[in-house]
Amino acid sequence: MKISDLVIDRLPLYARALAALESDGREVVSSQELAKTLNVSAAQIRKDFSYFGRFGKQGRGYNVRKLLDELRRILGLNRQWRLALIGAGRLGRAILGYEGFGPQGFRIVEAFDSDPAVIGTSLNGLTIRNTADLENVLAKNKVDVGIVAVPAEGAQRVIDSLVRCGIRAILNYAPIAAQVPAAVQVRRVDPVLALQGMTFYLKAATDNE
Amino acid sequence: MKISDLVIDRLPLYARALAALESDGREVVSSQELAKTLNVSAAQIRKDFSYFGRFGKQGRGYNVRKLLDELRRILGLNRQWRLALIGAGRLGRAILGYEGFGPQGFRIVEAFDSDPAVIGTSLNGLTIRNTADLENVLAKNKVDVGIVAVPAEGAQRVIDSLVRCGIRAILNYAPIAAQVPAAVQVRRVDPVLALQGMTFYLKAATDNE
Repeated sequence: MKISDLVIDRLPLYARALAALESDGREVVSSQELAKTLNVSAAQIRKDFSYFGRFGKQGRGYNVRKLLDELRRILGLNRQWRLALIGAGRLGRAILGYEGFGPQGFRIVEAFDSDPAVIGTSLNGLTIRNTADLENVLAKNKVDVGIVAVPAEGAQRVIDSLVRCGIRAILNYAPIAAQVPAAVQVRRVDPVLALQGMTFYLKAATDNE
Repeated sequence: MKISDLVIDRLPLYARALAALESDGREVVSSQELAKTLNVSAAQIRKDFSYFGRFGKQGRGYNVRKLLDELRRILGLNRQWRLALIGAGRLGRAILGYEGFGPQGFRIVEAFDSDPAVIGTSLNGLTIRNTADLENVLAKNKVDVGIVAVPAEGAQRVIDSLVRCGIRAILNYAPIAAQVPAAVQVRRVDPVLALQGMTFYLKAATDNE
């Protein structure tokens, strides 16, 4: 089964919309209504779901609970995932304090830093460990995902360590284009880079005024 | 000049690496060294820069200060950009408190919410205004970028309002695929969606074990 990343990246959006409908007590939803909520075409939604089997009956809409359960199963959202955070500076501390991960099954179970002043201190119930011990620690205490929140110059070295630990999913907050084997997934999160990618266009438009 | 978004999205990475070199007192850098720091090939870097004119002399490397100034000019990073935040819930408050925007020239000058309990309260020196007044407020107090931090169901309505206000850049934290005219840039930021897009692959790999 080879499905485009674009399809996979839309599935969590569908799951989130369905969870909202479920908590409103809704039992059935049409692809048209989902389409309207998420700004994806109804045809796109039906096509995306078709990769994963039959979810609804023609003309009768989707069963919200069933579809949500199935999406959660497909995406692994009904599991607890264990995360390691590397980098406990200002950004890392904000990530550690972010309350959006826990309810979705993402739990940071290890945190690392290379600053001697930070190593050994406690943060949100975790003792910050030395980044130099990363591979030893993660060999004993397996995690599923690495969150990289270190400066650019050390980021690839950290990513290489995570890959050597067998980690196959990396959320990268560092401003580098991470190099990883094909079997490893990387997603980048950086609001400032996102803004700076847009100001180019704003500037170009202003220059023409 | 029609340049791929992929090129534009790499320019802020180059600027950030050069700013780090400059603060280290470095005067010259080779494309090879930049390539190593950022995990982009040296050939790619030279090609990306070539879109914007000559930045270096063959074999002598780039002048860090000059290249950085030029990238800042191209990207509009030497300006102050005015941002409006829509949604002052938990996520919006975290965005308002994020210290990474200011030093890069991004200043949130207006904040909106639709919750009567929140409207009129003060946050980081800003008075939260009613989202219903968005278009009136932004007609008088122009901003360059809108940050959307409202729940999915209201997000497209907010985005439509921002577009009607003439805003051409939107940073979208809401879990929807925003629909905007071609002249409007949108970037999405959502670490949980990014994680959920990866757990699909983790789960598939685990299932095969």
